[in-house]
Amino acid sequence: MSQEQDTEVPGAEERLARQIDFLREIDKIKGVFRQTWLLDGSRKENDAEHSWHLATMAMLLAEYAAEPGIDLARVVRMVLVHDLVEIDAGDTFAYDEVGERDKAAREQAAADRIFAILPPDQAAEVRALWDEFEARRTGEARFAAALDRLQPLLHNYCTQGAAWREHGVTAGQVLARNRHMAEGAPKLWRYAERLIHNAVRKGYLAGE
Amino acid sequence: MSQEQDTEVPGAEERLARQIDFLREIDKIKGVFRQTWLLDGSRKENDAEHSWHLATMAMLLAEYAAEPGIDLARVVRMVLVHDLVEIDAGDTFAYDEVGERDKAAREQAAADRIFAILPPDQAAEVRALWDEFEARRTGEARFAAALDRLQPLLHNYCTQGAAWREHGVTAGQVLARNRHMAEGAPKLWRYAERLIHNAVRKGYLAGE
Repeated sequence: MSQEQDTEVPGAEERLARQIDFLREIDKIKGVFRQTWLLDGSRKENDAEHSWHLATMAMLLAEYAAEPGIDLARVVRMVLVHDLVEIDAGDTFAYDEVGERDKAAREQAAADRIFAILPPDQAAEVRALWDEFEARRTGEARFAAALDRLQPLLHNYCTQGAAWREHGVTAGQVLARNRHMAEGAPKLWRYAERLIHNAVRKGYLAGE
Repeated sequence: MSQEQDTEVPGAEERLARQIDFLREIDKIKGVFRQTWLLDGSRKENDAEHSWHLATMAMLLAEYAAEPGIDLARVVRMVLVHDLVEIDAGDTFAYDEVGERDKAAREQAAADRIFAILPPDQAAEVRALWDEFEARRTGEARFAAALDRLQPLLHNYCTQGAAWREHGVTAGQVLARNRHMAEGAPKLWRYAERLIHNAVRKGYLAGE
Protein backbone atom coordinates (compact mmCIF):
# COMPACT_ATOMS: atom_id res chain seq x y z
CA MET A 1 0.00 0.00 0.00
CA SER A 2 1.21 3.45 -0.86
CA GLN A 3 1.56 4.88 2.63
CA GLU A 4 3.89 2.06 3.51
CA GLN A 5 6.34 3.17 0.83
CA ASP A 6 6.55 6.69 2.17
CA THR A 7 9.92 7.12 3.81
CA GLU A 8 11.68 9.41 1.39
CA VAL A 9 13.17 11.90 3.78
CA PRO A 10 15.31 14.58 2.16
CA GLY A 11 18.83 14.53 3.49
CA ALA A 12 18.82 10.97 4.87
CA GLU A 13 22.03 9.53 3.61
CA GLU A 14 22.17 6.25 1.73
CA ARG A 15 23.45 4.13 4.63
CA LEU A 16 20.82 5.24 7.13
CA ALA A 17 18.12 5.05 4.44
CA ARG A 18 18.96 1.37 3.83
CA GLN A 19 18.98 0.61 7.55
CA ILE A 20 15.58 2.25 7.95
CA ASP A 21 14.24 0.38 4.90
CA PHE A 22 15.34 -2.90 6.51
CA LEU A 23 13.79 -1.99 9.86
CA ARG A 24 10.53 -1.29 8.02
CA GLU A 25 10.73 -4.51 6.02
CA ILE A 26 11.12 -6.68 9.09
CA ASP A 27 7.94 -5.26 10.62
CA LYS A 28 6.25 -7.91 8.46
CA ILE A 29 7.47 -10.63 10.82
CA LYS A 30 4.77 -9.50 13.24
CA GLY A 31 2.31 -11.01 10.78
CA VAL A 32 4.04 -14.41 10.44
CA PHE A 33 2.17 -16.72 12.79
CA ARG A 34 3.51 -19.91 14.30
CA GLN A 35 1.73 -23.03 15.55
CA THR A 36 2.51 -22.21 19.19
CA TRP A 37 -0.36 -20.90 21.31
CA LEU A 38 0.06 -18.04 23.77
CA LEU A 39 -0.13 -19.26 27.36
CA ASP A 40 -3.56 -17.65 27.86
CA GLY A 41 -4.85 -19.68 24.91
CA SER A 42 -6.23 -16.58 23.16
CA ARG A 43 -4.36 -16.99 19.87
CA LYS A 44 -1.17 -18.32 18.27
CA GLU A 45 2.00 -16.27 18.55
CA ASN A 46 3.95 -14.59 15.78
CA ASP A 47 7.66 -14.65 14.96
CA ALA A 48 8.41 -11.22 16.48
CA GLU A 49 6.91 -12.28 19.81
CA HIS A 50 8.71 -15.64 19.67
CA SER A 51 12.05 -13.96 18.88
CA TRP A 52 11.62 -11.51 21.76
CA HIS A 53 10.84 -14.40 24.11
CA LEU A 54 13.94 -16.32 22.97
CA ALA A 55 16.22 -13.31 23.39
CA THR A 56 14.95 -12.82 26.93
CA MET A 57 15.41 -16.53 27.62
CA ALA A 58 18.99 -16.34 26.33
CA MET A 59 19.62 -13.56 28.82
CA LEU A 60 18.07 -15.40 31.79
CA LEU A 61 19.01 -19.03 31.09
CA ALA A 62 22.62 -18.40 30.00
CA GLU A 63 23.95 -20.45 32.91
CA TYR A 64 22.58 -23.63 31.29
CA ALA A 65 24.58 -23.31 28.06
CA ALA A 66 26.67 -26.44 27.45
CA GLU A 67 29.75 -24.32 26.80
CA PRO A 68 30.16 -21.74 29.57
CA GLY A 69 32.49 -19.40 27.65
CA ILE A 70 30.11 -18.63 24.79
CA ASP A 71 29.43 -15.08 23.56
CA LEU A 72 25.96 -14.46 24.95
CA ALA A 73 25.53 -11.19 23.05
CA ARG A 74 25.96 -13.14 19.81
CA VAL A 75 23.35 -15.69 20.94
CA VAL A 76 20.94 -12.81 21.50
CA ARG A 77 21.68 -11.23 18.09
CA MET A 78 21.26 -14.65 16.50
CA VAL A 79 17.82 -15.31 17.96
CA LEU A 80 16.67 -11.76 17.14
CA VAL A 81 17.21 -12.41 13.41
CA HIS A 82 16.82 -16.21 13.17
CA ASP A 83 13.27 -16.14 11.80
CA LEU A 84 13.45 -13.12 9.45
CA VAL A 85 13.57 -15.40 6.41
CA GLU A 86 10.01 -16.45 7.27
CA ILE A 87 8.80 -13.06 5.98
CA ASP A 88 9.06 -14.67 2.53
CA ALA A 89 9.30 -18.38 3.33
CA GLY A 90 6.55 -18.57 5.96
CA ASP A 91 6.66 -20.62 9.14
CA THR A 92 7.19 -24.35 8.60
CA PHE A 93 5.68 -26.32 11.49
CA ALA A 94 8.35 -28.44 13.15
CA TYR A 95 6.49 -31.68 12.39
CA ASP A 96 5.49 -30.83 8.79
CA GLU A 97 7.52 -33.36 6.78
CA VAL A 98 6.27 -32.11 3.41
CA GLY A 99 7.08 -28.49 4.22
CA GLU A 100 10.53 -29.52 5.45
CA ARG A 101 11.48 -30.81 1.99
CA ASP A 102 11.85 -27.45 0.26
CA LYS A 103 12.23 -25.34 3.40
CA ALA A 104 15.98 -24.81 2.95
CA ALA A 105 15.62 -23.58 -0.64
CA ARG A 106 12.74 -21.24 0.27
CA GLU A 107 14.68 -19.81 3.19
CA GLN A 108 17.91 -19.31 1.23
CA ALA A 109 16.04 -17.28 -1.38
CA ALA A 110 14.41 -15.24 1.38
CA ALA A 111 17.76 -14.56 3.05
CA ASP A 112 19.21 -13.39 -0.29
CA ARG A 113 16.43 -10.85 -0.78
CA ILE A 114 15.81 -9.60 2.75
CA PHE A 115 19.34 -9.21 4.12
CA ALA A 116 20.46 -7.39 0.93
CA ILE A 117 18.26 -4.44 1.91
CA LEU A 118 20.90 -3.57 4.54
CA PRO A 119 24.22 -1.85 3.75
CA PRO A 120 26.63 -4.59 2.53
CA ASP A 121 28.66 -4.90 5.76
CA GLN A 122 25.52 -5.39 7.85
CA ALA A 123 23.91 -7.68 5.27
CA ALA A 124 26.98 -9.91 5.60
CA GLU A 125 26.86 -9.74 9.41
CA VAL A 126 23.18 -10.75 9.61
CA ARG A 127 23.68 -13.44 6.97
CA ALA A 128 26.59 -14.87 8.99
CA LEU A 129 24.43 -14.94 12.14
CA TRP A 130 21.64 -16.74 10.31
CA ASP A 131 24.03 -19.22 8.66
CA GLU A 132 25.62 -19.90 12.05
CA PHE A 133 22.22 -20.52 13.65
CA GLU A 134 21.16 -22.87 10.87
CA ALA A 135 24.44 -24.85 10.84
CA ARG A 136 24.42 -25.39 14.62
CA ARG A 137 28.19 -25.91 14.67
CA THR A 138 29.15 -23.40 17.38
CA GLY A 139 28.33 -23.37 21.09
CA GLU A 140 26.37 -20.16 20.54
CA ALA A 141 24.23 -21.68 17.78
CA ARG A 142 23.62 -24.90 19.73
CA PHE A 143 22.46 -22.92 22.76
CA ALA A 144 20.24 -20.67 20.59
CA ALA A 145 18.74 -23.77 18.96
CA ALA A 146 18.04 -25.34 22.37
CA LEU A 147 16.09 -22.24 23.43
CA ASP A 148 14.25 -22.24 20.10
CA ARG A 149 12.99 -25.74 20.98
CA LEU A 150 12.36 -25.21 24.68
CA GLN A 151 10.02 -22.25 24.23
CA PRO A 152 7.34 -23.92 22.06
CA LEU A 153 7.69 -27.11 24.12
CA LEU A 154 6.96 -25.17 27.30
CA HIS A 155 4.02 -23.41 25.65
CA ASN A 156 2.63 -26.71 24.42
CA TYR A 157 2.91 -28.24 27.87
CA CYS A 158 1.29 -25.24 29.59
CA THR A 159 -1.62 -25.22 27.14
CA GLN A 160 -2.30 -28.92 27.69
CA GLY A 161 -0.66 -29.86 24.40
CA ALA A 162 -2.82 -27.55 22.25
CA ALA A 163 -0.60 -27.57 19.13
CA TRP A 164 0.45 -31.22 19.62
CA ARG A 165 -3.16 -32.37 19.76
CA GLU A 166 -4.17 -30.13 16.85
CA HIS A 167 -1.54 -31.76 14.62
CA GLY A 168 -1.59 -35.30 16.06
CA VAL A 169 2.05 -35.14 17.13
CA THR A 170 3.44 -38.05 19.21
CA ALA A 171 5.97 -38.15 22.03
CA GLY A 172 8.34 -40.11 19.78
CA GLN A 173 8.34 -37.28 17.26
CA VAL A 174 8.84 -34.65 19.95
CA LEU A 175 11.75 -36.55 21.51
CA ALA A 176 13.44 -37.16 18.14
CA ARG A 177 12.95 -33.61 16.93
CA ASN A 178 14.23 -31.92 20.09
CA ARG A 179 16.97 -34.28 21.23
CA HIS A 180 19.67 -31.93 19.89
CA MET A 181 18.82 -29.63 22.80
CA ALA A 182 21.17 -31.85 24.82
CA GLU A 183 24.14 -30.51 22.82
CA GLY A 184 23.33 -26.85 23.50
CA ALA A 185 21.86 -26.98 27.00
CA PRO A 186 21.95 -30.45 28.62
CA LYS A 187 20.16 -29.44 31.80
CA LEU A 188 17.34 -27.77 29.85
CA TRP A 189 17.03 -30.92 27.75
CA ARG A 190 16.61 -33.02 30.91
CA TYR A 191 13.90 -30.58 32.00
CA ALA A 192 12.30 -30.80 28.55
CA GLU A 193 12.34 -34.60 28.69
CA ARG A 194 10.46 -34.48 31.98
CA LEU A 195 7.93 -32.12 30.43
CA ILE A 196 7.43 -34.51 27.54
CA HIS A 197 6.99 -37.57 29.78
CA ASN A 198 4.61 -35.66 32.06
CA ALA A 199 2.67 -34.51 29.01
CA VAL A 200 2.13 -38.13 27.96
CA ARG A 201 1.08 -39.13 31.47
CA LYS A 202 -1.45 -36.28 31.58
CA GLY A 203 -2.83 -36.99 28.11
CA TYR A 204 -1.53 -33.77 26.50
CA LEU A 205 0.62 -35.72 24.06
CA ALA A 206 0.12 -39.12 22.39
CA GLY A 207 2.54 -41.83 23.59
CA GLU A 208 5.20 -43.11 21.27
CA MET B 1 -7.08 -20.59 33.95
CA SER B 2 -6.03 -23.90 35.35
CA GLN B 3 -3.97 -25.20 32.45
CA GLU B 4 -1.82 -22.09 32.65
CA GLN B 5 -0.76 -23.00 36.17
CA ASP B 6 0.40 -26.43 35.19
CA THR B 7 4.18 -26.43 35.26
CA GLU B 8 4.90 -28.54 38.28
CA VAL B 9 7.56 -30.79 36.92
CA PRO B 10 9.00 -33.28 39.40
CA GLY B 11 12.71 -32.78 39.78
CA ALA B 12 12.94 -29.21 38.50
CA GLU B 13 15.03 -27.49 41.09
CA GLU B 14 13.93 -24.25 42.73
CA ARG B 15 16.16 -21.92 40.70
CA LEU B 16 15.13 -23.25 37.30
CA ALA B 17 11.50 -23.42 38.43
CA ARG B 18 11.54 -19.69 39.27
CA GLN B 19 13.18 -18.83 35.96
CA ILE B 20 10.55 -20.82 34.09
CA ASP B 21 7.77 -19.19 36.12
CA PHE B 22 9.12 -15.77 35.13
CA LEU B 23 9.39 -16.75 31.45
CA ARG B 24 5.75 -17.86 31.61
CA GLU B 25 4.63 -14.69 33.40
CA ILE B 26 6.17 -12.40 30.79
CA ASP B 27 4.22 -14.13 28.01
CA LYS B 28 1.45 -11.73 29.09
CA ILE B 29 3.31 -8.83 27.48
CA LYS B 30 2.16 -10.19 24.12
CA GLY B 31 -1.30 -9.02 25.15
CA VAL B 32 -0.31 -5.46 26.14
CA PHE B 33 -1.14 -3.30 23.13
CA ARG B 34 0.40 0.06 22.32
CA GLN B 35 -0.95 2.98 20.31
CA THR B 36 1.51 2.36 17.45
CA TRP B 37 0.10 0.80 14.29
CA LEU B 38 1.91 -1.94 12.38
CA LEU B 39 3.26 -0.65 9.06
CA ASP B 40 0.65 -2.60 7.11
CA GLY B 41 -2.07 -0.80 9.07
CA SER B 42 -3.75 -4.08 10.06
CA ARG B 43 -3.66 -3.55 13.84
CA LYS B 44 -1.75 -1.92 16.68
CA GLU B 45 1.41 -3.60 17.95
CA ASN B 46 2.05 -5.13 21.35
CA ASP B 47 4.93 -4.70 23.76
CA ALA B 48 6.66 -7.99 22.86
CA GLU B 49 6.76 -7.01 19.18
CA HIS B 50 7.90 -3.49 20.05
CA SER B 51 10.67 -4.81 22.32
CA TRP B 52 11.88 -7.20 19.63
CA HIS B 53 11.96 -4.36 17.12
CA LEU B 54 13.96 -2.14 19.50
CA ALA B 55 16.50 -4.88 20.26
CA THR B 56 17.06 -5.41 16.54
CA MET B 57 17.37 -1.65 16.03
CA ALA B 58 19.96 -1.48 18.82
CA MET B 59 21.97 -4.11 16.98
CA LEU B 60 21.76 -2.37 13.58
CA LEU B 61 21.87 1.32 14.54
CA ALA B 62 24.63 1.07 17.18
CA GLU B 63 26.91 3.32 15.14
CA TYR B 64 24.62 6.29 15.87
CA ALA B 65 24.92 6.09 19.67
CA ALA B 66 26.13 9.42 21.09
CA GLU B 67 28.77 7.63 23.12
CA PRO B 68 30.68 5.20 20.93
CA GLY B 69 32.12 3.08 23.75
CA ILE B 70 28.80 1.96 25.22
CA ASP B 71 28.03 -1.66 26.10
CA LEU B 72 25.68 -2.61 23.29
CA ALA B 73 24.79 -5.96 24.87
CA ARG B 74 23.46 -4.06 27.89
CA VAL B 75 21.41 -1.80 25.63
CA VAL B 76 19.84 -4.90 24.10
CA ARG B 77 19.12 -6.48 27.50
CA MET B 78 17.64 -3.17 28.65
CA VAL B 79 15.20 -2.87 25.76
CA LEU B 80 14.20 -6.53 26.05
CA VAL B 81 12.89 -5.93 29.59
CA HIS B 82 12.02 -2.19 29.53
CA ASP B 83 8.28 -2.69 29.12
CA LEU B 84 7.70 -5.73 31.37
CA VAL B 85 6.15 -3.54 34.06
CA GLU B 86 3.29 -2.86 31.64
CA ILE B 87 2.02 -6.38 32.32
CA ASP B 88 0.48 -4.86 35.46
CA ALA B 89 0.64 -1.11 34.75
CA GLY B 90 -0.59 -1.18 31.15
CA ASP B 91 0.74 0.96 28.32
CA THR B 92 0.55 4.71 28.95
CA PHE B 93 0.32 6.57 25.64
CA ALA B 94 3.24 9.01 25.32
CA TYR B 95 0.90 12.03 25.06
CA ASP B 96 -1.54 10.98 27.80
CA GLU B 97 -0.96 13.64 30.45
CA VAL B 98 -3.47 12.20 32.91
CA GLY B 99 -1.99 8.71 32.64
CA GLU B 100 1.50 10.14 33.12
CA ARG B 101 0.59 11.45 36.61
CA ASP B 102 0.51 8.08 38.38
CA LYS B 103 2.52 6.11 35.82
CA ALA B 104 5.66 5.99 37.95
CA ALA B 105 3.84 4.63 41.02
CA ARG B 106 1.97 2.01 38.96
CA GLU B 107 5.16 0.89 37.30
CA GLN B 108 7.17 0.71 40.52
CA ALA B 109 4.55 -1.60 42.06
CA ALA B 110 4.59 -3.73 38.92
CA ALA B 111 8.40 -3.99 38.98
CA ASP B 112 8.26 -5.08 42.63
CA ARG B 113 5.86 -7.92 41.86
CA ILE B 114 7.07 -9.15 38.49
CA PHE B 115 10.86 -9.12 38.90
CA ALA B 116 10.57 -10.89 42.29
CA ILE B 117 9.42 -14.03 40.51
CA LEU B 118 13.04 -14.54 39.41
CA PRO B 119 15.81 -15.91 41.67
CA PRO B 120 17.07 -12.95 43.77
CA ASP B 121 20.30 -12.33 41.83
CA GLN B 122 18.44 -12.14 38.52
CA ALA B 123 15.59 -10.11 40.02
CA ALA B 124 18.21 -7.54 41.07
CA GLU B 125 19.85 -7.63 37.63
CA VAL B 126 16.60 -7.02 35.75
CA ARG B 127 15.53 -4.36 38.24
CA ALA B 128 18.86 -2.56 37.74
CA LEU B 129 18.40 -2.66 33.97
CA TRP B 130 14.91 -1.22 34.26
CA ASP B 131 15.98 1.47 36.75
CA GLU B 132 18.87 2.40 34.45
CA PHE B 133 16.54 2.68 31.46
CA GLU B 134 14.08 4.84 33.38
CA ALA B 135 16.73 7.16 34.85
CA ARG B 136 18.38 7.79 31.48
CA ARG B 137 21.67 8.71 33.15
CA THR B 138 24.04 6.39 31.24
CA GLY B 139 25.01 6.39 27.58
CA GLU B 140 23.40 2.96 27.25
CA ALA B 141 20.07 4.17 28.68
CA ARG B 142 20.07 7.34 26.57
CA PHE B 143 20.66 5.33 23.41
CA ALA B 144 17.96 2.81 24.38
CA ALA B 145 15.54 5.68 25.06
CA ALA B 146 16.32 7.24 21.67
CA LEU B 147 15.41 3.98 19.93
CA ASP B 148 12.26 3.69 22.04
CA ARG B 149 11.17 7.05 20.58
CA LEU B 150 12.38 6.56 17.01
CA GLN B 151 10.44 3.34 16.43
CA PRO B 152 6.90 4.68 17.07
CA LEU B 153 7.80 7.93 15.31
CA LEU B 154 8.83 6.01 12.21
CA HIS B 155 5.67 3.89 12.38
CA ASN B 156 3.53 6.99 12.74
CA TYR B 157 5.20 8.64 9.76
CA CYS B 158 4.89 5.52 7.59
CA THR B 159 1.19 5.10 8.42
CA GLN B 160 0.44 8.73 7.52
CA GLY B 161 0.28 9.74 11.16
CA ALA B 162 -2.36 7.17 12.14
CA ALA B 163 -1.84 7.35 15.93
CA TRP B 164 -1.07 11.10 15.88
CA ARG B 165 -4.32 11.85 14.08
CA GLU B 166 -6.29 9.44 16.24
CA HIS B 167 -5.18 11.29 19.38
CA GLY B 168 -4.94 14.85 17.99
CA VAL B 169 -1.23 15.11 18.73
CA THR B 170 0.62 18.20 17.43
CA ALA B 171 4.16 18.66 16.10
CA GLY B 172 4.99 20.79 19.12
CA GLN B 173 4.13 17.92 21.44
CA VAL B 174 6.11 15.43 19.35
CA LEU B 175 9.17 17.67 19.24
CA ALA B 176 9.05 18.38 22.98
CA ARG B 177 8.45 14.77 23.94
CA ASN B 178 11.21 13.31 21.77
CA ARG B 179 13.88 15.99 21.95
CA HIS B 180 15.91 13.91 24.43
CA MET B 181 16.74 11.60 21.52
CA ALA B 182 19.51 14.12 20.75
CA GLU B 183 21.34 13.06 23.92
CA GLY B 184 21.34 9.37 23.04
CA ALA B 185 21.64 9.42 19.26
CA PRO B 186 22.08 12.91 17.77
CA LYS B 187 22.08 11.80 14.15
CA LEU B 188 18.89 9.78 14.63
CA TRP B 189 17.28 12.82 16.26
CA ARG B 190 18.15 14.94 13.21
CA TYR B 191 16.52 12.25 11.06
CA ALA B 192 13.51 12.22 13.38
CA GLU B 193 13.19 16.01 13.18
CA ARG B 194 13.06 15.76 9.41
CA LEU B 195 10.38 13.07 9.68
CA ILE B 196 8.34 15.35 11.95
CA HIS B 197 8.64 18.38 9.68
CA ASN B 198 7.80 16.29 6.63
CA ALA B 199 4.82 14.85 8.47
CA VAL B 200 3.47 18.35 9.06
CA ARG B 201 4.03 19.33 5.44
CA LYS B 202 2.19 16.24 4.26
CA GLY B 203 -0.70 16.69 6.68
CA TYR B 204 0.05 13.58 8.81
CA LEU B 205 0.60 15.70 11.91
CA ALA B 206 -0.96 18.99 13.05
CA GLY B 207 1.43 21.97 13.01
CA GLU B 208 2.57 23.51 16.27
